[in-house]
Amino acid sequence: MTNILIFGHKNPDTDSICSAIVYNNLKRLQGMDTEAVRLGELNDETKYALEYFNVSAPRLVEELKEGQHVILVDHNEFQQSANGIEKAVIREVIDHHRIANFETAGPLYYRAEPLGCTATILKKIYEEQSVHIDKQMAGLMLSALISDSLLLKSPTCTLRDKVAAEELAKIAGVNLEEYGLAMLKAGASTKDKKAEELITLDAKEFILGDDKLIVAQINTVDEKEVADRKEELANAINSEISKKSLSAFVFVITNILTSNSEVLVLGAKQDKVAAAFGKTLANDFMTLEGVVSRKKQVVPQITEEFTK
Amino acid sequence: MTNILIFGHKNPDTDSICSAIVYNNLKRLQGMDTEAVRLGELNDETKYALEYFNVSAPRLVEELKEGQHVILVDHNEFQQSANGIEKAVIREVIDHHRIANFETAGPLYYRAEPLGCTATILKKIYEEQSVHIDKQMAGLMLSALISDSLLLKSPTCTLRDKVAAEELAKIAGVNLEEYGLAMLKAGASTKDKKAEELITLDAKEFILGDDKLIVAQINTVDEKEVADRKEELANAINSEISKKSLSAFVFVITNILTSNSEVLVLGAKQDKVAAAFGKTLANDFMTLEGVVSRKKQVVPQITEEFTK
Repeated sequence: MTNILIFGHKNPDTDSICSAIVYNNLKRLQGMDTEAVRLGELNDETKYALEYFNVSAPRLVEELKEGQHVILVDHNEFQQSANGIEKAVIREVIDHHRIANFETAGPLYYRAEPLGCTATILKKIYEEQSVHIDKQMAGLMLSALISDSLLLKSPTCTLRDKVAAEELAKIAGVNLEEYGLAMLKAGASTKDKKAEELITLDAKEFILGDDKLIVAQINTVDEKEVADRKEELANAINSEISKKSLSAFVFVITNILTSNSEVLVLGAKQDKVAAAFGKTLANDFMTLEGVVSRKKQVVPQITEEFTK
Repeated sequence: MTNILIFGHKNPDTDSICSAIVYNNLKRLQGMDTEAVRLGELNDETKYALEYFNVSAPRLVEELKEGQHVILVDHNEFQQSANGIEKAVIREVIDHHRIANFETAGPLYYRAEPLGCTATILKKIYEEQSVHIDKQMAGLMLSALISDSLLLKSPTCTLRDKVAAEELAKIAGVNLEEYGLAMLKAGASTKDKKAEELITLDAKEFILGDDKLIVAQINTVDEKEVADRKEELANAINSEISKKSLSAFVFVITNILTSNSEVLVLGAKQDKVAAAFGKTLANDFMTLEGVVSRKKQVVPQITEEFTK
């Protein structure tokens, strides 16, 4: 029987790690020789979830062997996947993102749905295949869902995600709000992180016409704690701007308790970024109320301003 | 409510036409404003199936408007899809092929499985969503399945396809063997077709290193009837070879009753094609016993010979 590796994207978040473990559990119950692995270090939020439900972290894999059989969860674009993915045999993909920079030589099982996280799709697959969801697996699916939806508050969170979260919390034996907040807080500690770490932990690069921008995001329970370190952050950000020839660097500090974001914007085109939201910067900062989703509430607005 | 067009690939076969109709039926039962359409003329086999089950042919669409919402069935590669697909909004894909040259701007519902035809996946979706499969829809799914699997004989036909075929034949109220053979024969009439038509009806181009080849296939119940027209076929094929600078043109004449193929090979590298099967040509022909699938039994062998 062929050994198959299951993994989420590089720079893994809680959905990528938990979905790999949860899908591996299903496949092994069905008698397949699979193994959940990870492509990078665990963040503090994911560590909290795995410890809470007493599940071991997957093994780290940095490079795939040629011809390795794999299953991708929570991503499909090759630049986000394992080194060597081009020469692997992709057996399956379970994902909730757009499809791009993805290609296979032969037919495969591909399951994507426009839901808030991959774990909600996995819950459906367990049910379709009549496989029992135990307490641990429910806990991991719930953790992924809370992480991707910021406790069901993100506009990416669908009705189906919300219903799934209620059901999973019951099976996992936790209070959704209490557990969710504790998990998010565990990942939102910023005190012990250097500025360089904060601005790269979850940073995505965008090319908009002739301009290159980075939009980074960090979750916190006290945005002032982060904002107060402005000088240190500005030094790290300006170094990125000159190193990567950026037109602007947008650093979104999201308070998971209030669902508001403080945004630090630097670079030659900082005012153009602010204009995308009808704002002017004060000491390089602007406040965006009710903004928690980079994908839906930050990137489209900047894209429109820079491409109009 | 947004109107959504559902269609299969250009140069449509029975799976592409029937799957569009069958999925449209499901969506409309669920209250969505969808319409099944087609991207090209119906072949004789598909006409037979639609007439037998008394279903109208979908409307022909040649070009999509910008921003049109669409659902693709039985294909995903943009070069096989509607003109204007790049500016459409792809809401869903249901398919059983490899994924390539495909990209979306946002998340979508994508369902691919490595099964013998798209209709078998649609049968699963009807069942998952507890939607009744009526006699007409069963008949169309069965027709798609018989067409893609050459009456369950192709190596692409899985156990799941076979079980589905038995169930669908019962609902459709037909004898699987009798109906299947009648439908395949309806599409296998070659007498009234010109040589130019026979060699282009189902032709696919392949680039193998520095060589460009075309592998065309035709189904028949009497391969001698086709082979006897060698001079006429050779003229048409040689014209294609010089027009498209081909290293070889491979014309596979498959007898659907015996599951054997007579293969006419022309072009400068005709002997290399024959060598891929351990054969030498006699009067430009070779016989391949038990060969019915271009995808699994012809193209890989030629690819290996030309790229080693």
